[in-house]
Amino acid sequence: MSAALTIVGLGPGSADHITPAAARALAEATDLVGYGPYLDRIPEIRSHQAVHASDNRVELDRARLALTLAASGRRVAVVSGGDPGVFAMAAAVFEAVEKGDPTWRDLDIRVEPGVTAMLAAAASVGAPLGGDFCAISLSDNLKSWATIERRLKAAAEADFVIALYNAASKARPHQLDRAFDLLRRLKSGKTVTLFVRAAGTDEAKIALTTLAEARASAADMRTMVIVGSSGTRLIDRPGRLPFVYTPRSEVS
Amino acid sequence: MSAALTIVGLGPGSADHITPAAARALAEATDLVGYGPYLDRIPEIRSHQAVHASDNRVELDRARLALTLAASGRRVAVVSGGDPGVFAMAAAVFEAVEKGDPTWRDLDIRVEPGVTAMLAAAASVGAPLGGDFCAISLSDNLKSWATIERRLKAAAEADFVIALYNAASKARPHQLDRAFDLLRRLKSGKTVTLFVRAAGTDEAKIALTTLAEARASAADMRTMVIVGSSGTRLIDRPGRLPFVYTPRSEVS
Repeated sequence: MSAALTIVGLGPGSADHITPAAARALAEATDLVGYGPYLDRIPEIRSHQAVHASDNRVELDRARLALTLAASGRRVAVVSGGDPGVFAMAAAVFEAVEKGDPTWRDLDIRVEPGVTAMLAAAASVGAPLGGDFCAISLSDNLKSWATIERRLKAAAEADFVIALYNAASKARPHQLDRAFDLLRRLKSGKTVTLFVRAAGTDEAKIALTTLAEARASAADMRTMVIVGSSGTRLIDRPGRLPFVYTPRSEVS
Repeated sequence: MSAALTIVGLGPGSADHITPAAARALAEATDLVGYGPYLDRIPEIRSHQAVHASDNRVELDRARLALTLAASGRRVAVVSGGDPGVFAMAAAVFEAVEKGDPTWRDLDIRVEPGVTAMLAAAASVGAPLGGDFCAISLSDNLKSWATIERRLKAAAEADFVIALYNAASKARPHQLDRAFDLLRRLKSGKTVTLFVRAAGTDEAKIALTTLAEARASAADMRTMVIVGSSGTRLIDRPGRLPFVYTPRSEVS
């Protein structure tokens, strides 16, 4: 096997959602690089594989380590939750490539896609992303809150279904409520709003409410928040959680 | 096995991207329902499995057939390309449930997520969806062109990366050029624009251009179009296609 770097999407949580292509990229690696809890999700680590665990929030350092290893002839897998291209490790790796050693551009760098969190969250309740939608990260570590507000406003204007990544964090306790307040000024209070924690795992937990009633306290770091479009609706079922879906059509 | 209906995401094209959970749902089904070309992608059809192929564009009929089979005690898998919840079969099934036989609401209906086309397309070039993004279907079979234009405008205002599903069709030859024209009025002509055909398959074909140069003739029914944000950029590589990525950060 030649030197290479693959950024591998582990999917939403269960080994059942790791694609065969992703599993092969993990099995073929000499070095596994990632945030500890993601490395813990690799189904089988071989004895000859070197494991490089790092803390959260050091994506660029992790990317540079992975690139340095690949440049030295190793075959590296950088693990990422969900899909690497959606608020995860792939952009950090390419940022490191752009700013780093020019020889890194010659490396065989690939992205192995995965099931991103909003797809697993949506699947767990029905089809809330059935119409046009957007995905916004609420983290303002890397962009301004003004930009986030501008995007929330435009999303409301477009009547997109809105998937909120990084919706809640101990370091940013007030932002999700600010986002709900902003959306309440622009959208009906009756808008279907979903909190899906640990989607795609055995610990999945779903809370269904309206935009009027939505509170940040219902979310933690593992929670995906989905705010519906004007068309998103419930199908009631006696004794069970309703199905939630967004019709493909404007008129119903 | 009890009666049930599972809407199964086959991912972008190759069997390598079918999750183990999706493969199991296919293997356990007594009946496989879907558009012919998707049924053809099932790696192994068992001799006891009944196959119900249908034409494209008859999603509701197909959904009703699947529900009727499940209600009669069969274990049904409805196959869908990519992820069932993104411009695919899941919303059609729930629409049929809402409008159909009330006893259908008691069925065990599940969605098995998959890698949707934009993730595979993005992975094939780098990380163009690395920032906030939206997904819009350009088909006006089920919504008005005015709605599509409103969403494209809002997407430009938000500076989202824009993934266009159903970008081109023989039945709708002029819409993609109309979308490009609209976006050219609102975004820089230098905006990175990608055409990825048959992403995630051996036949994948990538074309990289600018919004100023983008023409609908570069797309067909199997093409995902991604129009970058103002931050989407290229990393040049001698003798190879550049990497394309959108930085996580606004400033770089």
